[in-house]
Amino acid sequence: MNAPAHIEKSDLSANPAERLMVMSADDMQAVNTIILDRMQSPVGMIPDLAAHLVDAGGKRLRPLLTIACARLFGESETAHHKLAAAVEFIHSATLLHDDVIDESDLRRGREVANRIWGNSASILVGDFLFARAFNLMVETGSLEALDILSSAASIIAEGEVHQLAALRNTSITEDVYMDVIGAKTAALFAAACEVSPVISKRPQAEQEALRDFGTKLGLAFQLTDDALDYGGFESALGKSVGDDFREGKVTLPVIRAIESADDTERAFWERVIGEHNQNETDLERAVSMLRKSGALDQTVDLARQYASDAKNALEIFPASDWRTVLEDLADFIVERIS
Amino acid sequence: MNAPAHIEKSDLSANPAERLMVMSADDMQAVNTIILDRMQSPVGMIPDLAAHLVDAGGKRLRPLLTIACARLFGESETAHHKLAAAVEFIHSATLLHDDVIDESDLRRGREVANRIWGNSASILVGDFLFARAFNLMVETGSLEALDILSSAASIIAEGEVHQLAALRNTSITEDVYMDVIGAKTAALFAAACEVSPVISKRPQAEQEALRDFGTKLGLAFQLTDDALDYGGFESALGKSVGDDFREGKVTLPVIRAIESADDTERAFWERVIGEHNQNETDLERAVSMLRKSGALDQTVDLARQYASDAKNALEIFPASDWRTVLEDLADFIVERIS
Repeated sequence: MNAPAHIEKSDLSANPAERLMVMSADDMQAVNTIILDRMQSPVGMIPDLAAHLVDAGGKRLRPLLTIACARLFGESETAHHKLAAAVEFIHSATLLHDDVIDESDLRRGREVANRIWGNSASILVGDFLFARAFNLMVETGSLEALDILSSAASIIAEGEVHQLAALRNTSITEDVYMDVIGAKTAALFAAACEVSPVISKRPQAEQEALRDFGTKLGLAFQLTDDALDYGGFESALGKSVGDDFREGKVTLPVIRAIESADDTERAFWERVIGEHNQNETDLERAVSMLRKSGALDQTVDLARQYASDAKNALEIFPASDWRTVLEDLADFIVERIS
Repeated sequence: MNAPAHIEKSDLSANPAERLMVMSADDMQAVNTIILDRMQSPVGMIPDLAAHLVDAGGKRLRPLLTIACARLFGESETAHHKLAAAVEFIHSATLLHDDVIDESDLRRGREVANRIWGNSASILVGDFLFARAFNLMVETGSLEALDILSSAASIIAEGEVHQLAALRNTSITEDVYMDVIGAKTAALFAAACEVSPVISKRPQAEQEALRDFGTKLGLAFQLTDDALDYGGFESALGKSVGDDFREGKVTLPVIRAIESADDTERAFWERVIGEHNQNETDLERAVSMLRKSGALDQTVDLARQYASDAKNALEIFPASDWRTVLEDLADFIVERIS
């Protein structure tokens, strides 16, 4: 079955993320049941903190990818649901640890968990969700899926450390930046897509295509996020604009702006990022320079290119509503910026 | 083979931990090679930080247990070495996160990693080592070992959260305390011992016996540690005496002291632990009360009882140098207090 019967025609005019959610409603209900079940613990702080994050209206984009990739070849088994839940747990664990590290205030429009329960609880509940992710994978009995997701997990952590080591370093190259986002973001997108054909024992070509799709989609997603950090609106994003700037993260917009900077501009970037000496008007000035230099446009252009590559990766699959929604999602992930 | 040929008679008079290290020297060299290999990364901060912890002369007690349990029935395969390394990685990840949470100054006699590289690096390198542990387990191809160790990992995190939630709560019962140490400490000892018979497909009775041995040994170990925190010497321990007291951890010595306390003493514990209002002489007063009340002696007595239970669990195995050293180790783990 390609689309649940209860999809109304009107749903097809919704944005692709919403369409995908409607099409995956039954599967995602099964995934959510697993998520809610597996974040339980007699230690009340665990479900309390986990629920704060998990119920906070996250898009569940990564588990949706696992489901949609399985539906591409008409499958929807308990194992897919468990792997989708495991993917969301790995992502949630990463978010909990990121929020401690980034000292951000908002996540999905809500106060971050560590501001309520403290850093220690966020670290430990992150560890708990991470371990529970592995419990779920073990239950599927697929060593190959375990291999893919545990490799992704170590690559994610490696990417996060790399990003930390590169903080406030204005001489970071575009290659380093691409390595970092490939690891910290695209690796989990890729794994979320790849585990579905693996668990269904689909041909190697489909596995490779979906891994490629996930990688490219993840790169497009992170590039767009990094552009949005200098150009979105706090209310729409549910995260503060300028977070990367305040933390001194050297993202592609900044790398491109520095490349074409004159001496005055270069001195500005060195002061605000390199020396991390920022005053109240600096973010505004940074945004203006990123726009004027074309650095934001270039970043979005690169995101569009990866979205296009992602769509191309799906060409080996026959046309279907699921392929269409994944293709549209790739465009949407970038176009949410406008 | 029961003991490598290069063990000298003189080694047999060494303490059991040292004897076990000598007997396991060849195996542990293989384990160390895996550990050093798998903590490598092009991101230099990872091996630097990991080496600080891993090279710091830790006893490697948990991987030694994995090796010794395999040797009990004459086995020593690459899979055992990989699981031993995985066990050490899980333990190391826990230590890195614990040090961020506990705000301790020393670990294994050295400055804690987070004081040098920062909390963020310790959190993320912990995540990396944890993920690498799972990579190693996947390589052994044993879903059963993966199940045991991933379950242990979520129980450990659950125990750590439980301990955090119980912090500064003077009405914590002994049952809660035993649950916490069973989870945060004994679960990994048990898993470290149990995976060896599992990977060697030994009879169920041996698996259960070694799981039981590990659990009891872990309880004896943690009870002794908690007594040492009020009675050891900083130089011998490599950790600061009074850490638990300063953090407001309610361990068995405190629970027992409160049980037999008069009103003045009860008010003292409520102030220093419950209200976490401590002055410079309070630790000394606490130690004196713990000694006088017999609370420290009772804690060590309970540790001895678990050590004895641990030894009993080994009775199903034929006599051998390996069984003897494990039995002696159980006693030694408690007697290091004197």
